[in-house]
Amino acid sequence: MSNIITQEIESRFTYIENGSITSVNGIKAAGIHCGLKKRKKDLALIFSDVPAEAAGMYTTNKAAAPPVLVSKKITDRPQKIRAIIVNSANANACTGTAGYLDALEVQSKCADILNAKPSEVLVSSTGVIGQMLDVSTIISSLENLKNSLSKKNGIDAAQAIMTTDTHPKHFALSVSLKNGKINIGGIAKGSGMIMPNMATMLGFITTDAKISKQLLNNALQEAVKDSFNKISVDGETSTNDMVLILANGFSNIEILENTENYLAFVSALKDLSIKMATSIVFDGEGATKFITVNIKNAPTEKDANLIAKAIVNSPLVKTAINGGDPNWGRVISAASSCGADIKPQNVSLYFNDMAILQPGYKIDFIEEEAAKTLSGKNIVITLDLNDGQANTAWWTCDYSEEYIKINAFYRT
Amino acid sequence: MSNIITQEIESRFTYIENGSITSVNGIKAAGIHCGLKKRKKDLALIFSDVPAEAAGMYTTNKAAAPPVLVSKKITDRPQKIRAIIVNSANANACTGTAGYLDALEVQSKCADILNAKPSEVLVSSTGVIGQMLDVSTIISSLENLKNSLSKKNGIDAAQAIMTTDTHPKHFALSVSLKNGKINIGGIAKGSGMIMPNMATMLGFITTDAKISKQLLNNALQEAVKDSFNKISVDGETSTNDMVLILANGFSNIEILENTENYLAFVSALKDLSIKMATSIVFDGEGATKFITVNIKNAPTEKDANLIAKAIVNSPLVKTAINGGDPNWGRVISAASSCGADIKPQNVSLYFNDMAILQPGYKIDFIEEEAAKTLSGKNIVITLDLNDGQANTAWWTCDYSEEYIKINAFYRT
Repeated sequence: MSNIITQEIESRFTYIENGSITSVNGIKAAGIHCGLKKRKKDLALIFSDVPAEAAGMYTTNKAAAPPVLVSKKITDRPQKIRAIIVNSANANACTGTAGYLDALEVQSKCADILNAKPSEVLVSSTGVIGQMLDVSTIISSLENLKNSLSKKNGIDAAQAIMTTDTHPKHFALSVSLKNGKINIGGIAKGSGMIMPNMATMLGFITTDAKISKQLLNNALQEAVKDSFNKISVDGETSTNDMVLILANGFSNIEILENTENYLAFVSALKDLSIKMATSIVFDGEGATKFITVNIKNAPTEKDANLIAKAIVNSPLVKTAINGGDPNWGRVISAASSCGADIKPQNVSLYFNDMAILQPGYKIDFIEEEAAKTLSGKNIVITLDLNDGQANTAWWTCDYSEEYIKINAFYRT
Repeated sequence: MSNIITQEIESRFTYIENGSITSVNGIKAAGIHCGLKKRKKDLALIFSDVPAEAAGMYTTNKAAAPPVLVSKKITDRPQKIRAIIVNSANANACTGTAGYLDALEVQSKCADILNAKPSEVLVSSTGVIGQMLDVSTIISSLENLKNSLSKKNGIDAAQAIMTTDTHPKHFALSVSLKNGKINIGGIAKGSGMIMPNMATMLGFITTDAKISKQLLNNALQEAVKDSFNKISVDGETSTNDMVLILANGFSNIEILENTENYLAFVSALKDLSIKMATSIVFDGEGATKFITVNIKNAPTEKDANLIAKAIVNSPLVKTAINGGDPNWGRVISAASSCGADIKPQNVSLYFNDMAILQPGYKIDFIEEEAAKTLSGKNIVITLDLNDGQANTAWWTCDYSEEYIKINAFYRT
């Protein structure tokens, strides 16, 4: 995917094998079992050796969970951060005032043990909605959590934030700037079917770049816009979604506004974010295919995104791809009914490299060959509007019978 | 359903057993096999003995099919109508200028055989997208179609417009007005999963009321708003959707603006439209449950509709209902992430008559009992916002594994 968007600057950064948040200088992490889950890791801590600038992006769901509200209040302030504590198994969502007090208590007790102020600790939760958080279980494990902090435990932290994920998601890259190298690392969770009840898409990113809070926030907005905000599995927005970034300046390499360094930093951050976001789609329960939707030459960026979003959210497109059926009418219909500026009679449509439809509704493909190209696991749908210069890429997965099975009987 | 909305005026109208469009005075119909399908009926004609006022509502899909464009042009004019011709098996959609000329030819040849003007004939198609219509097959059957016109063939017409429907959909009622009785009849097609490729939700309504074109149009808008526009199966809008109404004045009973007669007419038309629309949802392929979503006491009607629409379109709610899982978090999350004005901490939620959630996220239900109430085939989800006076009802069906199976392998 990444080569579609950032080809010309890709040479500036290199992925680090088995990288994670701790591939970044001055960052330690821990992931332990505290008892919210039966046996698996369920509590993670990300710790910066020095106070770090922080920025966050949060769910727009009006039932946003208490940890979302607590963390947002903090990243909204001009205040540095030392740590992020995350539990899985329980989302602490739809838990009201009591749930809010619980989130504050986790924050404050975690700050105590780290010799930090509560306002230097961000909190995050993921798991079942509507059940009170077992705060005492978390608190009694904080000493152990702190003692587990290490440069080696980035992947442990990635494991501890998993819910229905089938594997931990962790990436890191180093970026060559004019005056030296910086690193960016990230861990993510979320399984394809972004399920409000086993809530959440979470992303935590660290960097040792030296950057102001305002600029860090701009860079995060820019990166999330083209990554986490362009994946969709079933069109649902959960109560707990958040992406946080910490920048601790450990590299001493400064990133200033309107510089080449800033552009390189944003490109790398965007690429890492796309890696994290698409890894969530790849890991979809019941998902059998990974779908990239490219919209080309749309009148405006807004139109391009509306159309891409309509296609990645179309159950009819997602079921057709599941069945390997070159049912182009469903793509055209979804694109044409989303309110975007599109002239369906002027579009070109491709499945992978195969031309399916040309302007004037000219169909020129062989059914068997189209079915063959759709039999693969990686499907690229390209819709060229031939009506402007705006492009976008979105990602999703197919709908399988397994998806229904998992979601119909998830709790019972 | 109807009793929720129009209880106090229900006594004014009575459903006619086995009623259809031909239960209306001065209306004949035909439904025959012309050869677009292998054996089943595929061509329908609705004919009014005298010129009738007409109104239509059409898909907003930008890939609207040629028959939609042709019919809309006509109902937009101050012009009376004699007939509606409808074929199934082929949607004549995504067929460009040639498809538009085909629709005009069907219209013109049908007008010839009925001794009418082309502008007195409405056309409609439903079926596969992207294939040219076999116009000659239709034209060579027009004589036979005309000869089949009869008061007895309303249900034949309902059969001839079916695609994946498992049974014909036809209703009629008679309405007691101050100065006598009028009749309203309707036929519909559309199977639950409103599939763009086997396109379409169609509704054709006739009445012998005497009413101006403008007022008829107002009444249709009013009725469709609370019926056909409040059903959703998978959130898709097809290329061929349309609802047409003909009023031939045969009863000589006049319906004037701002009268009790008009209110009674709209109530009856709305009730009939809800019957037609919900029969489409009931007939969903793979659907195992019929779901009514009631939103109560919302701040505005717009909020109520946004929330209801979000819930009926939520794959997570629809799969939970499929599995009989009282997964209330999914309902709250869908309602809270649609942009409507909702305070999730203040809502009450009911599954059928069972209170699930009370304000302050107070959960007071027994899991087993909730699962039991969800084991039925008719599920009513009621979300009370406790924050205003706007109410609405929407309808949908569940998502089953069968839905995926049907839609994944529909064409191949």
